Amino acid sequence: MADRALLDLQTPAVVVDLEKARANILRFQAHANAAGLAARPHIKTHKLPQLARLQIEAGAVGITCQKVSEAEAMAAGDPAIRDILITYNILGQEKLARLRALAGRVRLSVVADSDAVVAGLSGAFADAGEPLAVLVECDTGGQRCGVASPEAARSLARAIAAAPGLAFGGLMTYPAAGGAARAADFLKAAKALIEAEGLPVPCVTSGGTPDIWQSRTDDILTEYRPGTYVYNDRSLVARGVATLEECALTVLATVVSVPAPGRAIIDAGSKVLTSDLLGLTGHGAVLGRPDLAIDQLSEEHGRIVCDGPVGLAVGDRLSIVPNHACVVTNMVDAVQMRMADGHIEPWAVAARGKVV
Amino acid sequence: MADRALLDLQTPAVVVDLEKARANILRFQAHANAAGLAARPHIKTHKLPQLARLQIEAGAVGITCQKVSEAEAMAAGDPAIRDILITYNILGQEKLARLRALAGRVRLSVVADSDAVVAGLSGAFADAGEPLAVLVECDTGGQRCGVASPEAARSLARAIAAAPGLAFGGLMTYPAAGGAARAADFLKAAKALIEAEGLPVPCVTSGGTPDIWQSRTDDILTEYRPGTYVYNDRSLVARGVATLEECALTVLATVVSVPAPGRAIIDAGSKVLTSDLLGLTGHGAVLGRPDLAIDQLSEEHGRIVCDGPVGLAVGDRLSIVPNHACVVTNMVDAVQMRMADGHIEPWAVAARGKVV
Repeated sequence: MADRALLDLQTPAVVVDLEKARANILRFQAHANAAGLAARPHIKTHKLPQLARLQIEAGAVGITCQKVSEAEAMAAGDPAIRDILITYNILGQEKLARLRALAGRVRLSVVADSDAVVAGLSGAFADAGEPLAVLVECDTGGQRCGVASPEAARSLARAIAAAPGLAFGGLMTYPAAGGAARAADFLKAAKALIEAEGLPVPCVTSGGTPDIWQSRTDDILTEYRPGTYVYNDRSLVARGVATLEECALTVLATVVSVPAPGRAIIDAGSKVLTSDLLGLTGHGAVLGRPDLAIDQLSEEHGRIVCDGPVGLAVGDRLSIVPNHACVVTNMVDAVQMRMADGHIEPWAVAARGKVV
Repeated sequence: MADRALLDLQTPAVVVDLEKARANILRFQAHANAAGLAARPHIKTHKLPQLARLQIEAGAVGITCQKVSEAEAMAAGDPAIRDILITYNILGQEKLARLRALAGRVRLSVVADSDAVVAGLSGAFADAGEPLAVLVECDTGGQRCGVASPEAARSLARAIAAAPGLAFGGLMTYPAAGGAARAADFLKAAKALIEAEGLPVPCVTSGGTPDIWQSRTDDILTEYRPGTYVYNDRSLVARGVATLEECALTVLATVVSVPAPGRAIIDAGSKVLTSDLLGLTGHGAVLGRPDLAIDQLSEEHGRIVCDGPVGLAVGDRLSIVPNHACVVTNMVDAVQMRMADGHIEPWAVAARGKVV
């Protein structure tokens, strides 16, 4: 039944095994519960209100989004989604107006790492009935956004608490992989400085699937925000975070050419698998054929090579675990959701392409 | 006026300068006319029926698509699009049925590089009123799809000519960059072998923007299929094929954080710029700021670094020429088309995400 349903799909197709995704959700929630961490999954991986609902039903306190448009799509997608943290500096009149409208529909919080961002948020929420919770983003080693020192975190927390329309919501970081201890040191120092000002720090939140099974409070964290764990991918298998069997998302592709004994071409290229390498060699793992490498992608072609004969024929179908699951779901209007009974339903990727 | 229109856009946005695109179209058409080559632009770069119309009005004999769903979107998008070559092996009952339906609406041709593909096409077109033109795809050095020798091309041409519902349409190649001479040798040998069988070779078609200004008949080609030339991009500038000023597509981004003197973060990450490197270092060229490098992307963050201070403030806007234009248009539902008078219209990317 399952195989017949796959045969009916036109390729390339992004296939998600719902039971594997469900198991991944439950496994992390159990870990978070045991660790005393609230779970706030990042929806960037699945972009599906239906899976956000499963995460909330499993025990998540809410969800994480990266952009206003993502949060809008999630809030509109399922009434179970009532608590959203946007871990991004929101700037510009139009986006601030959209944020304000969204705050009327769900419990909303955002982050800031500069006075300029705080000023914009305050301007938009000064006359709001409810203050907007704003967390200070801290750069604990990831070298992306974030204030650079615990002292700078204190200074910005003070500015948020003093800004009309805003409430200081706590501390947020996206640590470097393996940087949990360093992040904890930074966050503890920042929390102590802020509390010494008489300001409570209601939430200290970190994230990232690579360190998911090591995540713990470290005597400071209250919340964890993993994203990729819901599907897993080849990069997480390479890091030992998940097994290939725990990868819920695969790309189904058809062999369209076997032009030489050691080379085959599939109909999935960078428009499905994407060019994300995440430090890996090659563009995905062909399930059941560890001897094959996808060594080159163009937009609609994937090239498979092998030391010996590829042993494939035109028309053969392959399931591929991509390097990076999150970006793959963004390439298609719908994922093909494979249910427990093997039948497949197309689920529109509601938050696909939501970049503003 | 133009700048005010840009200021009104929410970022990140993919902006196309229509007059630059028009100039790029006319420049290549003039080259093709002078060289005695028919122009058949590949629409994978713009994915817009409106620009395909401009290409046809400039003198193109038709367009090139890579997938059936792309061709459907183009045929439905503008009645000027009446001649489509799909340079892909089409396999599977559903796609063959779609191909057959499309053949009733436009002059359609496809390629094949194996007996299996020819058998499928013949099965779908055996009872069609008009035979389907099928070109033999030749691997002249690109090592993707294609028959491996002129003798194999002859053998497959014979099979196409003998197959019910099909007509032999000629020879097609996508050569390796810089491989025009080798391609010409292969194609001349194949044409001679096929003509010696009494089979005419009505079309010999090659493509690729990297070698666009060197494209010529080489006493064998009748047609050329460039794609990226309509927009150009950083990879073509690096190869000396175009100037930055001739790049019609840019990504407009906002600085959301300047967390350290030598680092800024923009709101365009891999969900807009993509991870395509095409052999380059960094993820795009910041217009007017050659001292800045985009050294790292995550999905919604681009990291800008500089040897000295970045000299940027939160809220600043930057225009970025991406490494690879074709994949960027696939990331957004609409491009922001900037007209000659400076005003901007969103144009839906009709063939975005068409991978089947």
